[in-house]
Amino acid sequence: MKPVKVGLLGLGTVGTGVVRIVEGHQEDLSSQVGSPIVIEKIAVKNTEKDRSVTVESSKLTDDPWDVIRDPEIDVIVEVMGGIEQTKSYILEALDRGKHIVTANKDLMALHGAEIMAKAQEKQCDVFYEASVAGGIPIIRTLIEGFSSDRIMKIMGIVNGTTNFILTKMSQEGASYEDVLAEAQQLGYAEADPTSDVEGLDAARKMAILGTLGFRTNVELKDVSVKGISQVSKEDILYAKRLGYEMKLLGIADREDEQVSISVQPTMVRTSHPIAAVNGVYNAVYVYGEAVGETMFYGPGAGEMPTATSVVADLVAVIKNLKLGVNGLKAIVPYKAKKLKSDEQIMFKNFILLQVDDKAGVLAKITQVLAEFDVSLESVVQQPNDQNPDAEIIIVTHNASKASIDKVLNHFESLDVIRRIKSVYRVEG
Amino acid sequence: MKPVKVGLLGLGTVGTGVVRIVEGHQEDLSSQVGSPIVIEKIAVKNTEKDRSVTVESSKLTDDPWDVIRDPEIDVIVEVMGGIEQTKSYILEALDRGKHIVTANKDLMALHGAEIMAKAQEKQCDVFYEASVAGGIPIIRTLIEGFSSDRIMKIMGIVNGTTNFILTKMSQEGASYEDVLAEAQQLGYAEADPTSDVEGLDAARKMAILGTLGFRTNVELKDVSVKGISQVSKEDILYAKRLGYEMKLLGIADREDEQVSISVQPTMVRTSHPIAAVNGVYNAVYVYGEAVGETMFYGPGAGEMPTATSVVADLVAVIKNLKLGVNGLKAIVPYKAKKLKSDEQIMFKNFILLQVDDKAGVLAKITQVLAEFDVSLESVVQQPNDQNPDAEIIIVTHNASKASIDKVLNHFESLDVIRRIKSVYRVEG
Repeated sequence: MKPVKVGLLGLGTVGTGVVRIVEGHQEDLSSQVGSPIVIEKIAVKNTEKDRSVTVESSKLTDDPWDVIRDPEIDVIVEVMGGIEQTKSYILEALDRGKHIVTANKDLMALHGAEIMAKAQEKQCDVFYEASVAGGIPIIRTLIEGFSSDRIMKIMGIVNGTTNFILTKMSQEGASYEDVLAEAQQLGYAEADPTSDVEGLDAARKMAILGTLGFRTNVELKDVSVKGISQVSKEDILYAKRLGYEMKLLGIADREDEQVSISVQPTMVRTSHPIAAVNGVYNAVYVYGEAVGETMFYGPGAGEMPTATSVVADLVAVIKNLKLGVNGLKAIVPYKAKKLKSDEQIMFKNFILLQVDDKAGVLAKITQVLAEFDVSLESVVQQPNDQNPDAEIIIVTHNASKASIDKVLNHFESLDVIRRIKSVYRVEG
Repeated sequence: MKPVKVGLLGLGTVGTGVVRIVEGHQEDLSSQVGSPIVIEKIAVKNTEKDRSVTVESSKLTDDPWDVIRDPEIDVIVEVMGGIEQTKSYILEALDRGKHIVTANKDLMALHGAEIMAKAQEKQCDVFYEASVAGGIPIIRTLIEGFSSDRIMKIMGIVNGTTNFILTKMSQEGASYEDVLAEAQQLGYAEADPTSDVEGLDAARKMAILGTLGFRTNVELKDVSVKGISQVSKEDILYAKRLGYEMKLLGIADREDEQVSISVQPTMVRTSHPIAAVNGVYNAVYVYGEAVGETMFYGPGAGEMPTATSVVADLVAVIKNLKLGVNGLKAIVPYKAKKLKSDEQIMFKNFILLQVDDKAGVLAKITQVLAEFDVSLESVVQQPNDQNPDAEIIIVTHNASKASIDKVLNHFESLDVIRRIKSVYRVEG
């Protein structure tokens, strides 16, 4: 049968994995799709570079437009990264009727709506399973597995770097700085780790999951983001003592049709299944109105896991191609977006205060909480070993973000409070 | 738009959930498929029975053939259970060009090949996501999510009843008999619990997962089965002491093209993600050559979780119907089946022996193990509190099933061994 010709943009880590799987599993793949799959052309930065995978040099080009404009190519696999320039390649490819498989979370989080609209116009497929949680088929699960359900909450550990760091800090009592340095040495963190540790990478993935889960167009600017660079050894110690693990959680939840999406270090009750997800692994917990609690666990990055998702998408595109139904199953968000206000965003909080060690302090503090209608699950006052002050550890019941902000604001001006040491969302 | 008409066979627990979801989520569902979904006719045993969901009495019939033969009906949702009679309904429905969604693991495990062949002949869809692990979309994941990969191992906690029993025994030190009685009271176990506790239910699900994972036609008779009725409090105590949890695991693994599928109580290292799956929850761990370790967790049964999977399948069938591509994506196993011989089935073993408490016993026992090439990870001899004998606890390295059978056979005739108390597979 006539082979399906694929153009590859990028031959870095993931691209190399894609070549390996397409070649190594060719027999299994062609049994499924009914014809051979050929990687016809590959755009790379440097055509002369030594590579860990063998490709005919005649297939390499340093101009992505050579790939986009090749009329023989049916499907473009984009694993080069980048945003604006890459978007122009993708849009042009769609204009030419080519289908797209991409692993590019930045592109999809920022320009997903525009790209999907173009795809729909051109009746082309755009699949992006690998853009979130690497090897975990979570996008398929949200689109197809739970098509019948009403997703109420998604909680994701969707960044392996930060989960590696927090796991090490928790298991070894190490400091953030030390573990970050180790992660950089191991290649788990980049030289400039900002995008990972400040939660930006996770926020992009949560925008994608929120869009699919709630069928409304969640944009990056809708995601409130806080990273892990301020998480201290002490915070993690407190978390463990209270029965929690510290995780950088992306949380998308909704009530009726109102949604909120955030990324923040979160204390997760150890009995919650996501609390046990350690190291560079990712997991996405999905709560559906009908199905209840589910969780999907696997490698969040890496050459072969990510390539697994890319090639699974490629198989899906080619099956659609054979049936002539590309672009006809696209999920375009059909619900108007309604973001929760700060009054509607409810969660439990952990608050650690450094206070004067004298009588009446606790009374003043609990009075502030009561004033703003924040009720308490527990409050403990204890002396601090290091200094003459005392510490107060508060865990609230569900309270609105607005109330907590007011409480913290008030605390700033309360004379008995020396310092608000930490504030964390609590889940589970 | 013209509504899609669905016929329902059965209005028990799952059928009721299907009605609830189709009615309650009608707007979301019709937005996705492009037309209303109407449950047109429902076959029940007793049309007069009071039900927890409201259905027009004119839709009820006590004759399934009324549903099968209704020319208006496009899709049959089979949630009545049963095997031979139900098969005849399904085959007749396919003959009439109707698509099938079923939650019936027994039917699919025993007659899946015949049903899929008929479906292919008639270009009809047969979807059965709900037949394994209730609300977890594991069948989709194996067919689509990992279409690119080579699945090497599937380990499943796919029976909620037995996982509830083993979890309770582990957490509360209770006996099998006591927890089984409690499970029966709670409705988690049936009056005749044989199918669950003897592993037969799990075996059927593993035949389905093995077929999909390895793309070869695994039949029920290919699954070696052992249930949990012989698991003692003491066994679980030993497991915990050595760092394991006892789980009824379905294990399907392959090496090259040779596969083995089994269900048995298994000691799972506590650090393995599946060891933490407790209560009536299910989980399926999948190891793919490229993707590595993944796990999918969720409710294994119950009205709404199972109905979620059934209606997700219904959505998929209707999308295909709109595109005119039903039956064209069916996965028909294309690999010849090669089962591993007992010499090729390798795993670690836990063996608990009751022996004479005298010198030289351990030497005799280790000699037998050496003779059959079984190497040891650990061996401990300890006095038994209850009687004058001693106990020997052996954990082997990977050894073939054939060798272990020979060892146990030899042990039977060894005069220093009073009794082989327990033998378990060890994983993780």
